[in-house]
Amino acid sequence: MSDPSSYTPPAIWQWNLGNGGKFAHINRPVSGATHEKELPHGRHPLQLYSLATPNGVKVPVLLEELLALGHSGAEYDAWLIPINEGAQFGSGFVAVNPNSKIPALLDCSDATQPVRVFESGAILLYLAEKFGAFVPTSGAARAECLSWLFWQMGSAPFLGGGFGHFYAYAPEKFQYPIDRYAMEVKRQLDVLDQQLAVREYIAGSEYTVADMAIWPWYGALAKGQLYDAGEFLQVHEYTHVLRWADQIAQRPAVQRGRKVNRTWGDPASQLHERHDASDFDTQTQDKLAASS
Amino acid sequence: MSDPSSYTPPAIWQWNLGNGGKFAHINRPVSGATHEKELPHGRHPLQLYSLATPNGVKVPVLLEELLALGHSGAEYDAWLIPINEGAQFGSGFVAVNPNSKIPALLDCSDATQPVRVFESGAILLYLAEKFGAFVPTSGAARAECLSWLFWQMGSAPFLGGGFGHFYAYAPEKFQYPIDRYAMEVKRQLDVLDQQLAVREYIAGSEYTVADMAIWPWYGALAKGQLYDAGEFLQVHEYTHVLRWADQIAQRPAVQRGRKVNRTWGDPASQLHERHDASDFDTQTQDKLAASS
Repeated sequence: MSDPSSYTPPAIWQWNLGNGGKFAHINRPVSGATHEKELPHGRHPLQLYSLATPNGVKVPVLLEELLALGHSGAEYDAWLIPINEGAQFGSGFVAVNPNSKIPALLDCSDATQPVRVFESGAILLYLAEKFGAFVPTSGAARAECLSWLFWQMGSAPFLGGGFGHFYAYAPEKFQYPIDRYAMEVKRQLDVLDQQLAVREYIAGSEYTVADMAIWPWYGALAKGQLYDAGEFLQVHEYTHVLRWADQIAQRPAVQRGRKVNRTWGDPASQLHERHDASDFDTQTQDKLAASS
Repeated sequence: MSDPSSYTPPAIWQWNLGNGGKFAHINRPVSGATHEKELPHGRHPLQLYSLATPNGVKVPVLLEELLALGHSGAEYDAWLIPINEGAQFGSGFVAVNPNSKIPALLDCSDATQPVRVFESGAILLYLAEKFGAFVPTSGAARAECLSWLFWQMGSAPFLGGGFGHFYAYAPEKFQYPIDRYAMEVKRQLDVLDQQLAVREYIAGSEYTVADMAIWPWYGALAKGQLYDAGEFLQVHEYTHVLRWADQIAQRPAVQRGRKVNRTWGDPASQLHERHDASDFDTQTQDKLAASS
């Protein structure tokens, strides 16, 4: 790499297949399918195509919360999309999400007219509205919930695509981007910390989709579980975020949902696919058998 | 700046007030108010606090569209928040948006219980639902609109906070981040281009808040109006985005809305504050008088 102070961009950007860091092989300057591949389809009305990244965790957490409330229409099949192998560029997946990102949802409740939904925030809102839970329906409470739900969508790219990339995944450590994004991520944590100092949940006294959106990113970050950056960002300072993160982690639906489509870490934390509530019971046993 | 290949981040990140580029003086690692300052308040039910950045343009465009449809409840006062002077850190603004970003909205329709809304996407959805326009109410059409609205929120940080920052605003030209974000922004343009090749508007045959969210960013980018990056990104390739961008730019409500809280460019393109529909008529005259 050349000395940055002497770099002048060319007139026209060129796609260079050189070193782009850990995930360079799945980044492209064009969109669309790279290969024909149909998506699998199970017996439930909701078909989720995902992977247990922070964005991926949000949707099974909501679905498990809805099922825990007794909404049997929230039964779902969760299929694994291994993004590191380019599964998000299969023609079936692109038809559900032309942006080729997980998670993507197909709602086949009306079999004659399946509904596609993509972007984790849109899926959360769509499902919360469909079942009338975890999002207030009107007034100041709804406005506050929407504000924080969109806050997560606009903020986390600075955490994941910015800080995480340059601190953990880029081929070299570049000081300027690391400093830039560390500052912004600490500011975001402070925004949350000040809210959670005076509220039980991020949008008020009720647990909502805003918490489900924010927790997998900023809860994990505050607990030192993202990018090995706990000391660097001094996450122990954000005591109210930590209180809230622990509180949410104790919910049984969250403990189930975070396992779905997870293919790394402790075998007991993984459920590669979810097709039935009983899958969580047999999961640990299967994993231990498979790894023996 | 040291040679990036030799940089090792410290164990604990330190806030360095050094060179962070064009907007370094308004970036901080903490949140909250820096000074006491009440917000002004006009006679209309809706009070908008903003600046005509791409995110800022979205809301007055929707409000002008709603007024054009005859929704007199969408009358609004638009107040200027000069973010370069730190106005977003005044106590009144922070009370409406604890994240200190424009735009922020106060809905005082019920004077006893004003409603705050922040994040441009949340404001668009809140207003579209309040007036029952520009967002489908159910089914596949609503899912598609929400998906694209959230797509914009999650994608534009790679355009503005990523590409724009490193291509136009950072203190030096760093090749790696420019390459990284140029690739992603071209991919995003291609996602839109493939949609708009087969649809009149981004979510289908209807003009919705998804178009209003995407147009100020990707429409402007495709027209070469952002970051002087038209040639670099070869934006002329995205012919369907260009067709759509031109179509939206011709709407009278868009032509009005994009002027609101604008303080740069051609004087005829600026309306620093908007308090009445007639402000658009007198605006050019006032500007010419003021600049003479």
